[in-house]
Amino acid sequence: MTTKIDQAAIDRLFLEARSQNGWTDQPVSEAEIRALYDLVKYGPTSANTQPARFVFVTSPEAKERLRPALSPGNVKALAAPVIVLIGYALDFHDKIPEVFPHNPGFRDMFVNNPAAIEPHAFRNSSLQGAYLILAARALGLDVGPMSGFDAAKVDAEFFPGGTVKTNFIAAIGHGDPSKVMPRLPRLAFADAAQIV
Amino acid sequence: MTTKIDQAAIDRLFLEARSQNGWTDQPVSEAEIRALYDLVKYGPTSANTQPARFVFVTSPEAKERLRPALSPGNVKALAAPVIVLIGYALDFHDKIPEVFPHNPGFRDMFVNNPAAIEPHAFRNSSLQGAYLILAARALGLDVGPMSGFDAAKVDAEFFPGGTVKTNFIAAIGHGDPSKVMPRLPRLAFADAAQIV
Repeated sequence: MTTKIDQAAIDRLFLEARSQNGWTDQPVSEAEIRALYDLVKYGPTSANTQPARFVFVTSPEAKERLRPALSPGNVKALAAPVIVLIGYALDFHDKIPEVFPHNPGFRDMFVNNPAAIEPHAFRNSSLQGAYLILAARALGLDVGPMSGFDAAKVDAEFFPGGTVKTNFIAAIGHGDPSKVMPRLPRLAFADAAQIV
Repeated sequence: MTTKIDQAAIDRLFLEARSQNGWTDQPVSEAEIRALYDLVKYGPTSANTQPARFVFVTSPEAKERLRPALSPGNVKALAAPVIVLIGYALDFHDKIPEVFPHNPGFRDMFVNNPAAIEPHAFRNSSLQGAYLILAARALGLDVGPMSGFDAAKVDAEFFPGGTVKTNFIAAIGHGDPSKVMPRLPRLAFADAAQIV
């Protein structure tokens, strides 16, 4: 359990991976999307609640439904073979008897304390969105995460019913290296971290 | 940029990694903590804001400061060589001129719309917390993420001043395989995802 992964993988995941702004026409198959989910699902979530809900937008028709919700800067994402919508389910706790079977009554913690639902769903769906970014890279795909879209429009179009809210969205495909921006500065250890 | 990482790395990161409940006495060095940050910092955040703030709790004295904030179920974490506190900075936008230098005025979007600050910081620090979990695994470390602690006590003790709030905490070290729980069920693709 304590083996470092090889440097090529670390490069691929962290050191050389870059957020993408342009896309080649190489497709992403349904099998690749399912393989991606089959990694993402194993990322840890609090009480194993897995509150993220994913909509993989791939068809021209679905992309047109998404277009009005995108900002001018995000329309470029429609050129990617997949845009994934990462939502969070506000009824995630109804699945606790299934996903946390040794303590099904943990569902009541949320039923009796509704204010705990949204922070739990938002935090853990964000973790799952990050797992998705890194899992896509692990599978040889490139990612372009985005915020700045109209979340209410995405909710209305793709998550009707009101129990799922959009967290963020990301384009997935094969990036055009010529469209990658220069890497932006990262905070020094001392500006973001301390050891006590 | 489109090479799949090797299966051993995918196993290490996703398929075989497990949240830990017990720890060996193998230490984690300051060099390992700094190497961990040097991967985490490259994970993408919206507008490169990097709002997470990390406190690596390693000394016996600092662990005793943390103890009163832990739930009875979380006290086991104090046996790990490191407990990292992942916080989010509510003044992250003051660093936008440094980390987003081509558009320093983006800071004003948050100054003029304070309601946007906390969701941005919470979402993106959660992403960074997930990058930390996977980066630790990439470096051959094990992780035991936790919620259920008293966040107000952690804030008061480790983030005095009120500009950083605790998001979640995680033990880091070398796990005791005998303490790992059976793996919990994951949601089927159809229960968490759709392709449109």
